[in-house]
Amino acid sequence: MNVVNSMRMRNVKNKDEILNNSEYFIGDPFQYMGSWNKVFKNNNPIYLEIGMGKGKFIRENAKVNPNINYIGLERYDSIIAKCLPKIEQNTKNLVIVRANAIGIDKIFNHEIDCLFLNFSDPWPKVRHHSRRLSSEVFLKKYDQIFKKEINIHMRTDNTDLFAYSLESFSNHGLYLHDVSLNYHLTCKDELITTEYEDKFSSNDIPICHVIADKTKCLNK
Amino acid sequence: MNVVNSMRMRNVKNKDEILNNSEYFIGDPFQYMGSWNKVFKNNNPIYLEIGMGKGKFIRENAKVNPNINYIGLERYDSIIAKCLPKIEQNTKNLVIVRANAIGIDKIFNHEIDCLFLNFSDPWPKVRHHSRRLSSEVFLKKYDQIFKKEINIHMRTDNTDLFAYSLESFSNHGLYLHDVSLNYHLTCKDELITTEYEDKFSSNDIPICHVIADKTKCLNK
Repeated sequence: MNVVNSMRMRNVKNKDEILNNSEYFIGDPFQYMGSWNKVFKNNNPIYLEIGMGKGKFIRENAKVNPNINYIGLERYDSIIAKCLPKIEQNTKNLVIVRANAIGIDKIFNHEIDCLFLNFSDPWPKVRHHSRRLSSEVFLKKYDQIFKKEINIHMRTDNTDLFAYSLESFSNHGLYLHDVSLNYHLTCKDELITTEYEDKFSSNDIPICHVIADKTKCLNK
Repeated sequence: MNVVNSMRMRNVKNKDEILNNSEYFIGDPFQYMGSWNKVFKNNNPIYLEIGMGKGKFIRENAKVNPNINYIGLERYDSIIAKCLPKIEQNTKNLVIVRANAIGIDKIFNHEIDCLFLNFSDPWPKVRHHSRRLSSEVFLKKYDQIFKKEINIHMRTDNTDLFAYSLESFSNHGLYLHDVSLNYHLTCKDELITTEYEDKFSSNDIPICHVIADKTKCLNK
């Protein structure tokens, strides 16, 4: 069970209050389709994380990259209620959006520059595979949300989900980059991690990583 | 160190005798370019394994698939000398070819249906990556050897080589299928394995697997 599922189980009693009082929360994102630059009041690139959990990854990214706008998308109020209080005051480049990812093409219209899929729900049963955020169902929707071309950064500790995603990306005509079956070992840069990732990599569970986009690297 | 390298170290004293007396050995394969069907005296599909080691994988495949012709390609006489004596008498659909894989496009001219890369040398140093059998250098040569389109079946226990190969295949415009990070666990069919594979999978070292070809699978 991943952190998202386990968080789903625990209700947050005052979640409505937390959500309604937060300047970082957007409960009805459909109204901003095509005008997310107005939400942020600038034309900086927009990076999206679907399922940001408690938000460590997206918060830390927003802090070190003030010229990039970040959106965390999450379905469950209880999870959002755990994320919002952790956002530092006066953060200008981060909002948390409540939505089911299946409607993502009704929220963004060629506005996203980069999509992070960090430790997404693996949906292990074959009949549920189309619910995976890397399935063709979602890739077709992603085609509608990117400003230019698809640019997905994926991390997971689930090897079945990773193998499936590699096939799915490749079959969608995307090229694979920075593939690693043990990213914390092979990545030379200092990484911003998720809460879930810290927990698992500290237990020596290898993290898989891939970037899928439309850019062909020659002479590999 | 993989089995190929370790085998390189041990010379086989009577190797010239073994090679010269074997009906399954082809020491000068360049003369057959374009006419491998005549070597086998039929027009059955030809499956190639580069670096067949002691030959267990290709021998067992040849036995269960009499209507497919198999070619094992290997550079070193000492390794070939270990493989040849293991081939059963009256095998009609298997030959062992001595060649450096770098010259493969001078040996086959659109004649191969399937290529197996089993536990290839990982060439771990970055400056040697182009020597990997899944590098763009080799993929360009493979474009010349396949009857129709590239169809590569790869297995390895080396996660760096596997990650590199996924990128390389993808960047060459190939689609990925049957990706697994633990093939002995996920594969439902009974597998024909290599000697090296038996040794390592019995030690619970996961085997990675991918098929790379030009066939797009829809609705993944």
